[in-house]
Amino acid sequence: MHLSDDQLQAFDKDGYLFFPGKFSPEEAALLRAEADTVYALEREEVWRESSGAARTAFAAHTYNDAFARLGAHPRLIEPVMQILGGPVYIHQFKVNAKAAFDGEVWQWHQDYGTWKRDDDMPEPRAMNIAVFLDEVTAANGPLLLLPGSHKHGVLEAGHDLETTSYPLWTLARETVSELAERGGCIAPTGPPGSMLIFSSLLVHASPPNISPFGRTIVYLSLCHVDNHIRAFNRSEWIAHRDFTPIEPLEDDCLSQGAGGPRRAAE
Amino acid sequence: MHLSDDQLQAFDKDGYLFFPGKFSPEEAALLRAEADTVYALEREEVWRESSGAARTAFAAHTYNDAFARLGAHPRLIEPVMQILGGPVYIHQFKVNAKAAFDGEVWQWHQDYGTWKRDDDMPEPRAMNIAVFLDEVTAANGPLLLLPGSHKHGVLEAGHDLETTSYPLWTLARETVSELAERGGCIAPTGPPGSMLIFSSLLVHASPPNISPFGRTIVYLSLCHVDNHIRAFNRSEWIAHRDFTPIEPLEDDCLSQGAGGPRRAAE
Repeated sequence: MHLSDDQLQAFDKDGYLFFPGKFSPEEAALLRAEADTVYALEREEVWRESSGAARTAFAAHTYNDAFARLGAHPRLIEPVMQILGGPVYIHQFKVNAKAAFDGEVWQWHQDYGTWKRDDDMPEPRAMNIAVFLDEVTAANGPLLLLPGSHKHGVLEAGHDLETTSYPLWTLARETVSELAERGGCIAPTGPPGSMLIFSSLLVHASPPNISPFGRTIVYLSLCHVDNHIRAFNRSEWIAHRDFTPIEPLEDDCLSQGAGGPRRAAE
Repeated sequence: MHLSDDQLQAFDKDGYLFFPGKFSPEEAALLRAEADTVYALEREEVWRESSGAARTAFAAHTYNDAFARLGAHPRLIEPVMQILGGPVYIHQFKVNAKAAFDGEVWQWHQDYGTWKRDDDMPEPRAMNIAVFLDEVTAANGPLLLLPGSHKHGVLEAGHDLETTSYPLWTLARETVSELAERGGCIAPTGPPGSMLIFSSLLVHASPPNISPFGRTIVYLSLCHVDNHIRAFNRSEWIAHRDFTPIEPLEDDCLSQGAGGPRRAAE
């Protein structure tokens, strides 16, 4: 998995890269089943909507073997190492369920805004890489991105403690409108297994899911090891404190079966 | 405007037909500007969200010349006459704004359910035809349809008076899930001027619009004149009582200019 010069230029300009169907249907199905396993756990890392439906499982790579493998998958780790120019660690690992009918809104925000303010991460040398475990369509609450919005540094934000179950530093409407006037507003949609890389400064949101179909996405937030967080204000399973560089596994690490041995790449 | 046999079969099977860009960018822009004119009016027909943003202008064809022409446009009237097999009148005419950031949800429903229960329309010999005045994308609260859901008659529904600003007969989640398992859930997206025909029995909904872009759609609900409503429970500008058959105008009736004379087609 090596990004081309054109891809690197597109990432620099737009702040994201989208790879429909990057993981096979079988790989996506395996992870989708493991998501249900994780959501059924009564753990403090598994957060729920007011309806009781699972919203986010944090740190699933620390208590589920399949997600542990995904957390070292070369299709995720290598392009991010390439963009960030060096070894990375997992700052945050989320399996986000946007439940059918009940999935709530995420207001407009930048992830690095939170990582800076809450965790004292020195620089935005960190980014997100996501894998769709369900098909993401216009109907089931797709992620919305403002292309080019990562070019403006950390934008002023207010701490929203009320809209949803999760506190978030959210942006003013005027800011969102200005950025969208310049670069538009897009929603990457695609089959299970699609992969999305986006800058930690990219402004994004997602609407409620009123459709009858769930929409599960795994998000890895990867950070250059030199840029690790300095403040430990949040639980260690929300903002990790293990800054050991990830050694990418082999490309077939998922299809080796969730119960098999974990092999380090040579 | 004549539907082919294939189109008629597709409508029968799926309950909708979608025509991206059926109206020109100039025609769509003209109507979009008139929508703002209408929304600025302080009239009882113009309903607003709790935020004050316009939500729906009812009966705009009765007090705006451009929408009056659209209400007799052959691209809208003729295919519906063809499907319903005879002359039609306007049962309802809505200019629906799904305002940027503030546009609210419409829960899952069938329009004919309301027309039957509230207006005593004898049969579902009526349907909707919509024209997008803004681009409709995955981001700005697109209409969601359950293909094939029109094949099950009037489905049991509850009267929802709380979710939004507008009372609606909405369906149970179990019903929506079952229909979606059979036929899927789709969101027609396309440029301004796109046209959508859908059965009055087709189950549909639309999510909130959290994007920075508005999304205005004109909906004509057309009914066969023999099938006119029997009960006059709702205001005449919500459920019209003029059952005169519509005479389609000429195809260029919009581009003749909003101030020009209205010409009857020969």
